[in-house]
Amino acid sequence: MRIEIVAVGTELLLGQIADTNSQWMGEHLAAAGVASHFHQAVGDNQERMVLAFRTALARSDGVIVCGGLGPTHDDITREGIAEVMNVRLRRDEGGVERIRAMFSSRGREMPDTNLRQADVPEGASIIPQTKGTAPGLICPVGHKVVYAVPGVPYEMSDMFERGILPDLQRRMTERGESAGVIASRVIRTWGMSESGLAETLAGHIDDLEAAPSGPSMAGAGTSGSATIAFLASGIEGIKVRVTVRAADQDAASSLLDDQEAAIRRILYAQAGDVVFGVDDEAIEDAVARALAINGLTLGLAESLTGGLASSRLVNVPGASRWFRGSVVSYASQVKFSVLGVPEGPVVSEEAAGAMADGARRVLGSDVGLSTTGVAGPDTQDDQPPGTVHVGLAREGHPTESFSFNVPGDRDRVRQYATIAALDLLRRRLGSPTRD
Amino acid sequence: MRIEIVAVGTELLLGQIADTNSQWMGEHLAAAGVASHFHQAVGDNQERMVLAFRTALARSDGVIVCGGLGPTHDDITREGIAEVMNVRLRRDEGGVERIRAMFSSRGREMPDTNLRQADVPEGASIIPQTKGTAPGLICPVGHKVVYAVPGVPYEMSDMFERGILPDLQRRMTERGESAGVIASRVIRTWGMSESGLAETLAGHIDDLEAAPSGPSMAGAGTSGSATIAFLASGIEGIKVRVTVRAADQDAASSLLDDQEAAIRRILYAQAGDVVFGVDDEAIEDAVARALAINGLTLGLAESLTGGLASSRLVNVPGASRWFRGSVVSYASQVKFSVLGVPEGPVVSEEAAGAMADGARRVLGSDVGLSTTGVAGPDTQDDQPPGTVHVGLAREGHPTESFSFNVPGDRDRVRQYATIAALDLLRRRLGSPTRD
Repeated sequence: MRIEIVAVGTELLLGQIADTNSQWMGEHLAAAGVASHFHQAVGDNQERMVLAFRTALARSDGVIVCGGLGPTHDDITREGIAEVMNVRLRRDEGGVERIRAMFSSRGREMPDTNLRQADVPEGASIIPQTKGTAPGLICPVGHKVVYAVPGVPYEMSDMFERGILPDLQRRMTERGESAGVIASRVIRTWGMSESGLAETLAGHIDDLEAAPSGPSMAGAGTSGSATIAFLASGIEGIKVRVTVRAADQDAASSLLDDQEAAIRRILYAQAGDVVFGVDDEAIEDAVARALAINGLTLGLAESLTGGLASSRLVNVPGASRWFRGSVVSYASQVKFSVLGVPEGPVVSEEAAGAMADGARRVLGSDVGLSTTGVAGPDTQDDQPPGTVHVGLAREGHPTESFSFNVPGDRDRVRQYATIAALDLLRRRLGSPTRD
Repeated sequence: MRIEIVAVGTELLLGQIADTNSQWMGEHLAAAGVASHFHQAVGDNQERMVLAFRTALARSDGVIVCGGLGPTHDDITREGIAEVMNVRLRRDEGGVERIRAMFSSRGREMPDTNLRQADVPEGASIIPQTKGTAPGLICPVGHKVVYAVPGVPYEMSDMFERGILPDLQRRMTERGESAGVIASRVIRTWGMSESGLAETLAGHIDDLEAAPSGPSMAGAGTSGSATIAFLASGIEGIKVRVTVRAADQDAASSLLDDQEAAIRRILYAQAGDVVFGVDDEAIEDAVARALAINGLTLGLAESLTGGLASSRLVNVPGASRWFRGSVVSYASQVKFSVLGVPEGPVVSEEAAGAMADGARRVLGSDVGLSTTGVAGPDTQDDQPPGTVHVGLAREGHPTESFSFNVPGDRDRVRQYATIAALDLLRRRLGSPTRD
């Protein structure tokens, strides 16, 4: 069963709001094992709306239309669906009563325009409204179906779960389709390029593709299929996404566990400790885990990163247990007077080391981590934009310094430098998540 | 000229990421006077991709494809476009050299798979890459056109502005479509609700609507039309967006200047100094201007905001002229030992004042600004999440403290508190941008 989502609203085309409804429904359709190969967005124009609905019906088995069920003159999804069904709208008297009751329960007068929300294409059934004034619609079109739900997110999600999903599952059973479950997990890496990851995992991907359905995987003996994709979105490292299809949720989780373990094993053997987390885990979460496991506190001295590393670390719940603070020593004089860096060039490995020592001493932490460098656009101390020096001071270890270059404008240099410095700390402390 | 956006990536259909690229491009097409009646999203599957491209070409004059230009096996936008054009891919040698140079400038080896990114459909021209490894494409299809740009947002936006927009404008001129010019300016406010702004500006909006086209505006004698909308997107204050339509760019700029001046005048008279900037100017830019004009340096003491205020300030070009640094005193002991805050409760107006004094002294700045409070989820010192205390110390003035409450979770509390503290400083220094 292939379902296409059509979001209705000129504000979506104009970019005035993000289409989070399609994202939400895409995620929930996938989780229910329903394929969705296309999404569309269209404005509040009946001719174009009808064209979008017909396009969707031609290439999918069903359509979910989201938006355009409101009470105002530009809410014309009902009319558009009736045109596609080639039927007229009738006013549903039960619907009128529900809308009236909803207004009176809130102590408000119902404007007559709201009655339009009780209009239903002939032959359609409704998904009763419980949160807003517009009912949802289930509209048969030949052997296919068009669902319509309001664009208000919490009305949409309620009707999706209460009205659309049960109807879809009934249809899939009738078609003899065992939906199964689709689930995915993102394995997050830092320090490798997308193409480097792809080459390292190429053999594993080939194995998966050679057994595209129903392989008995790893030791678990679970059957199902898995695919792997790479996501380079943003600057938070490259993501390896594993998507599995299995009979039920337990089987899917087990497959994901197997795949995660296999990928971690291959990457660790060939590229070292590049995996820092899964799904929503950020680099600061990995640092927090490593500090907590080792019972260490952290203090920062930030010049290049200007407080960015600190602002990420404090967002980890429970940060007060291991985070002492940061000295953002933007002016050189602050490096000398507060951190005790020897007077001289401040963009150097030596300065980074002295800053890390200073952070430990001033903030009273077990570990000191520092950043200095050149954000650009100008060179500084003869060093080009993108130059990064990181210092790391730990009790019982000699203070270390590291230098490297990162690409991008001021903001990106800082962000890369922040992630790189935190990743360096994570690796030095020993990432506890590796297999 | 009607342009359809087609976002490519299975992760969009599965709801794993939001399609912010289509939103961004929709907004920028509208601003350029280009109509966009449909958006689509499609997965990494060549057959379906080709179907989506053909559907878009049938109902629009041109298509912007976003995503699927990466180096891995599932990046097949190049192949899909070549199929629609009915041509083969050729390897662009200049493109190969640019990709090689990009890798070697970062001191990294280029995997062979990256060479795919230099493949170009016969007859297509490229938009040279400056930020990532994939070039963009301009592909003629009969008298229509397909553009392709990478899905990485900052590569997409760069190529859109540098490659797509000029090409679109040339085509529109050739078609004899003088859209005139649509231009807009965003006037940014902090401290008023959306409905409060709407009420304050209601009279002005009525005047504009009464003369919807061709009014001779203000003293400039320029003709054109203007509309006003309110945007509550995000947490960086409420935006008032003025959109004008005029014969040419000069007339549009002049109309925007008149409208900006009128809106600033009305808001200042009725609500005070609520406007902090226009367009991309953020609150830190306003603070930077105020400090520079007054010849003052700034030092921070951040507890609640954890380095966030500092990380925003250092992104202003030339920050080193007025920004000394920040003491992120996350642990109470750091407030006592480094900043000299008297031992006792640290979430209070008194502590905020002492922190601001400490920041001035430790960092050697003219002005000290501090934040302390409760990010949540738990209460602290009997104060609820969202409690914010801000301290402000200036030479020749008694140290001041301010308290207020902001809504949201940990991250939002910090972000609101950061903006509120910076806005407070801006107002105290006297915003030099007001009319």
